[in-house]
Amino acid sequence: MRRKRGNLFVISAPSGAGKTTLCQKLKEIVPDVKFSVSYTTRKPRAGEIDGIHYTFVDEDEFRAMIADGEFVEWAQVHGNFYGTSKRRIENTISEGFDILLDIDVQGARQIREHFSDSILIFILPPSMDELKKRLAGRMSDSPEVIARRLKNAIDEIREYKNYDYVIINDVFDDALEEMVAIIIAERVRTSKIEEAWIKENFIKEE
Amino acid sequence: MRRKRGNLFVISAPSGAGKTTLCQKLKEIVPDVKFSVSYTTRKPRAGEIDGIHYTFVDEDEFRAMIADGEFVEWAQVHGNFYGTSKRRIENTISEGFDILLDIDVQGARQIREHFSDSILIFILPPSMDELKKRLAGRMSDSPEVIARRLKNAIDEIREYKNYDYVIINDVFDDALEEMVAIIIAERVRTSKIEEAWIKENFIKEE
Repeated sequence: MRRKRGNLFVISAPSGAGKTTLCQKLKEIVPDVKFSVSYTTRKPRAGEIDGIHYTFVDEDEFRAMIADGEFVEWAQVHGNFYGTSKRRIENTISEGFDILLDIDVQGARQIREHFSDSILIFILPPSMDELKKRLAGRMSDSPEVIARRLKNAIDEIREYKNYDYVIINDVFDDALEEMVAIIIAERVRTSKIEEAWIKENFIKEE
Repeated sequence: MRRKRGNLFVISAPSGAGKTTLCQKLKEIVPDVKFSVSYTTRKPRAGEIDGIHYTFVDEDEFRAMIADGEFVEWAQVHGNFYGTSKRRIENTISEGFDILLDIDVQGARQIREHFSDSILIFILPPSMDELKKRLAGRMSDSPEVIARRLKNAIDEIREYKNYDYVIINDVFDDALEEMVAIIIAERVRTSKIEEAWIKENFIKEE
């Protein structure tokens, strides 16, 4: 085998940067990338499938997993728990598959602490005006909710330097091309090539 | 401007790995990448254009340029001099353009010493057997020439760890896609984004 292990990609973005649509398209274009499935204590919504969108567990199970150190990161949001399993990531990578994790800046930091060779991608909207427009476009949200989201967005953008790549989602197709390019390029990094394969195929000749 | 500077890509490969064809196709696909033009004291061959294939100078001019420290690397091959101008690379990069340099492993090492943020790409044939086949395919070469080239190829392959990326040129279209992906991905590295642009566009808001 030429490749040692798969890559762990972590994607973060402020709300309104277009991350969800980008990730969905990416799934179609690079189907051999796995998407990480989180554990949650939240009840499934209509159309959500256990093991696809989330792995649904009850609070006792979740707390037991915390106690066993099974999560590389977990958080409580609006009373529900969400967590990422270390073992799931490790298994996917060691099988040689890339895995993609969609997570906020705090979660990304925890992932990087545990998986030091993870590759962090940050997605930015083209401008603050455009971000405001995109956030305001959701009619269901109150001005207070929009203002809080904007404040959060700025706080998250401050963290961009912790990321390896920054994609500006101005023209969608360009942003998508950049995301695909990162995944393909990271596969041919020298550190991903099995030294044994090189020796076996070339250097033993002499 | 979002991008600070262009990138310097350095491409090396043992003879027979298919580097020349890859670079030619790359020129068509990513036309905004500039290709470095070397200085040489060799006489132009039929069809070679001054300033396009090489910049042709006489030996006195070349030696004066060496004395002035104008070359980031230079070498003498079969009695002719070849050299890469520091200033040309620096000018291209500072204008925001990527530049690509096709050079052997020794030259690549010198480039990296001077341009520490250069990005080094090594191209491998799929296997030693395939390399032998490709080298033997040139009817004009004697067995001794082929044997020496093979020996050189192995010596060059030993150096692959000094490179950032290793592309295995098995399926040509895949190798080309990987090369294009590296160029696109390296453009969105966090270090290439102007911090001032981020501050101006987002963080000042608060």
